[in-house]
Amino acid sequence: MELLNDEYYMRLAIQLAGGAAGQTGINPVVGCVLVKDGRIVGMGAHLKRGTAHAEIHALQMAGAEAEGSTAYVTLEPCSHFGITPPCSDRLIKEKVKRVVVGSEDPNPLVAGTGIERLRQHGLEVVTGVLAEACRELNETFNHFIGSKRPFVTMKTASTLDGKIASRTGDSKWITNAESRTYVHNLRHRHQAIMVGIGTVLADDPLLTTRLDVPALHPIRLIIDSTLRLPLESKVVTDRTAETLVLTTENASESSKQRLEAAGVTVISCGSGPQVDLSKAMELLGGRDIASILLEGGGTLNGAMLEQRLVNKIHLFFAPKIIGGGRQSLDTMPFAGFDRMEEAIRLERTTVQQFGEDVCVTGYPRYSSEVR
Amino acid sequence: MELLNDEYYMRLAIQLAGGAAGQTGINPVVGCVLVKDGRIVGMGAHLKRGTAHAEIHALQMAGAEAEGSTAYVTLEPCSHFGITPPCSDRLIKEKVKRVVVGSEDPNPLVAGTGIERLRQHGLEVVTGVLAEACRELNETFNHFIGSKRPFVTMKTASTLDGKIASRTGDSKWITNAESRTYVHNLRHRHQAIMVGIGTVLADDPLLTTRLDVPALHPIRLIIDSTLRLPLESKVVTDRTAETLVLTTENASESSKQRLEAAGVTVISCGSGPQVDLSKAMELLGGRDIASILLEGGGTLNGAMLEQRLVNKIHLFFAPKIIGGGRQSLDTMPFAGFDRMEEAIRLERTTVQQFGEDVCVTGYPRYSSEVR
Repeated sequence: MELLNDEYYMRLAIQLAGGAAGQTGINPVVGCVLVKDGRIVGMGAHLKRGTAHAEIHALQMAGAEAEGSTAYVTLEPCSHFGITPPCSDRLIKEKVKRVVVGSEDPNPLVAGTGIERLRQHGLEVVTGVLAEACRELNETFNHFIGSKRPFVTMKTASTLDGKIASRTGDSKWITNAESRTYVHNLRHRHQAIMVGIGTVLADDPLLTTRLDVPALHPIRLIIDSTLRLPLESKVVTDRTAETLVLTTENASESSKQRLEAAGVTVISCGSGPQVDLSKAMELLGGRDIASILLEGGGTLNGAMLEQRLVNKIHLFFAPKIIGGGRQSLDTMPFAGFDRMEEAIRLERTTVQQFGEDVCVTGYPRYSSEVR
Repeated sequence: MELLNDEYYMRLAIQLAGGAAGQTGINPVVGCVLVKDGRIVGMGAHLKRGTAHAEIHALQMAGAEAEGSTAYVTLEPCSHFGITPPCSDRLIKEKVKRVVVGSEDPNPLVAGTGIERLRQHGLEVVTGVLAEACRELNETFNHFIGSKRPFVTMKTASTLDGKIASRTGDSKWITNAESRTYVHNLRHRHQAIMVGIGTVLADDPLLTTRLDVPALHPIRLIIDSTLRLPLESKVVTDRTAETLVLTTENASESSKQRLEAAGVTVISCGSGPQVDLSKAMELLGGRDIASILLEGGGTLNGAMLEQRLVNKIHLFFAPKIIGGGRQSLDTMPFAGFDRMEEAIRLERTTVQQFGEDVCVTGYPRYSSEVR
């Protein structure tokens, strides 16, 4: 049995927030629990960009009970007018007595201002309760708010000898159904999914989210420097999700017009010959894409790593050895480094098993000596 | 608190057996606990080939208390004269009343005969208590007794992108100190360690067991089809462990004589151009080598896998990405398979973390369609 204390209610607020992961777009996920005289009187979570914040939902549930209550909020209440009015003002107005905050606002320009405002109005504020868990809820938001570029999660699936296909190119299937279900959950949690044109030409994937329950489909991003994307490919013909093609200024104008006529958005990133991936991240950030799931192929994975644009990595390994040496494809081929100590290191690595598959997750730290 | 029952004492017998893992050569590890009137009166383990079996040590500790006791033995007591007289006769002679057996003798020619003999003399025999755990104690012995060939454990250490060196060949260090300590424990537990001549020429390794406590050094096996092994290499000059070089009948007689004069044993396996690895396993089995730790390099790993000579695999992954594509070495390059479904599958996979390193362990199942 969990013991009743500030952490108890904050954990519940974290659960509320986490439930909405993937559905708040560039906004953070936030949970709020209101407690008065030993009873929960309100619960809320931010559910969608442009709609009420977590505190407002909880206050509405509490009604008159909000007065004199303690609010547990995973993220510092906002103090500024955005799409909605500031939550700190509403907490003050509803006469909440005490506010327990998980993590401070990651935006350095406003961090602490919400807390300050509450204190100025006589509310007791406690900060830092389960702060790390609260911050982890919003790793994509925390990255985006500072950089204005999407948080990129790379996912690979290979054999234990690091291959994504046999020497003849056969790649169906490497991982098991459990792993693949997890990947569809990752798609739900990201605003966009990115692949290289090679993957589209080889596999003609749909790149939608297929789960036993309805889920959100990420925007499809295709990196295609010379606009080879066929009009009959599924990412063009299927309208379940929006498709954006990232190309170069050198791409043929007629190809561009044909694709746009088919409903695809085409964006130029640099003058070529390859798509300027760093520029692409900047442009996608500008289009309010805060999170991208990068699903290969190997060439694009390698290029994204090389340009230090990958923020998190999930490496799925199936319990198989396919061999083929140089004839079979690697998960992320790129020029690489001369010395082992220059290697990109994964930090905070964790391991999960999906049946007999193994998934290693970590956050790349790029050496300062990368060429 | 563990509850007193047959499993309780068998678990203790398993602990005794497991403690001696690595020091019984081609013999199994066996543990024995004698219990009388609610008290342990004797404990024993087989410690070294040619010396007393577990039951004998336990009976000696018990002395007169053996009469009327229950014996817990991880492996069926032997009924035949080997280097030592049969243990079943001794249990009968000492008037043990009840015998609890973990696993039957894996040698089909004698399985059950020890148990039968005990029953014929009126002892109560219970079988199959923690049988699987008892069998796992002796996976190398169980393989060897049936096949007369060594059980081969392959160990690799790579980056997460499956490389054992950077594009320039730098490989120091991939895994961390914790992983390397574990590997030295593996060396203690195997009778022999095997590497290809390429590894010796590149790294000049010592191939001994270095731990904080004294440990056993495996016999060094070098696969060297043309006898390129330099007389000044450590595996030749260092006398901590025996060194065997496996070559072909085509190797130069003068090279062979030079190596033998330096104290190395040279064995021919087939007429070349490559060492006949299957033949090598047969000859090594004939020399009472029941277990081999295969430590690469990639070419030898690949060849051993291709010829289905690997029985168990430990794949260490360091949380690093080194890149280099085709220029950096794979863990186990070999011709491989056309279709993903033909891949060698690892069964009973388990995952361990050593600091930030990850080790995947499993038992290869070779497809019936391997070319």
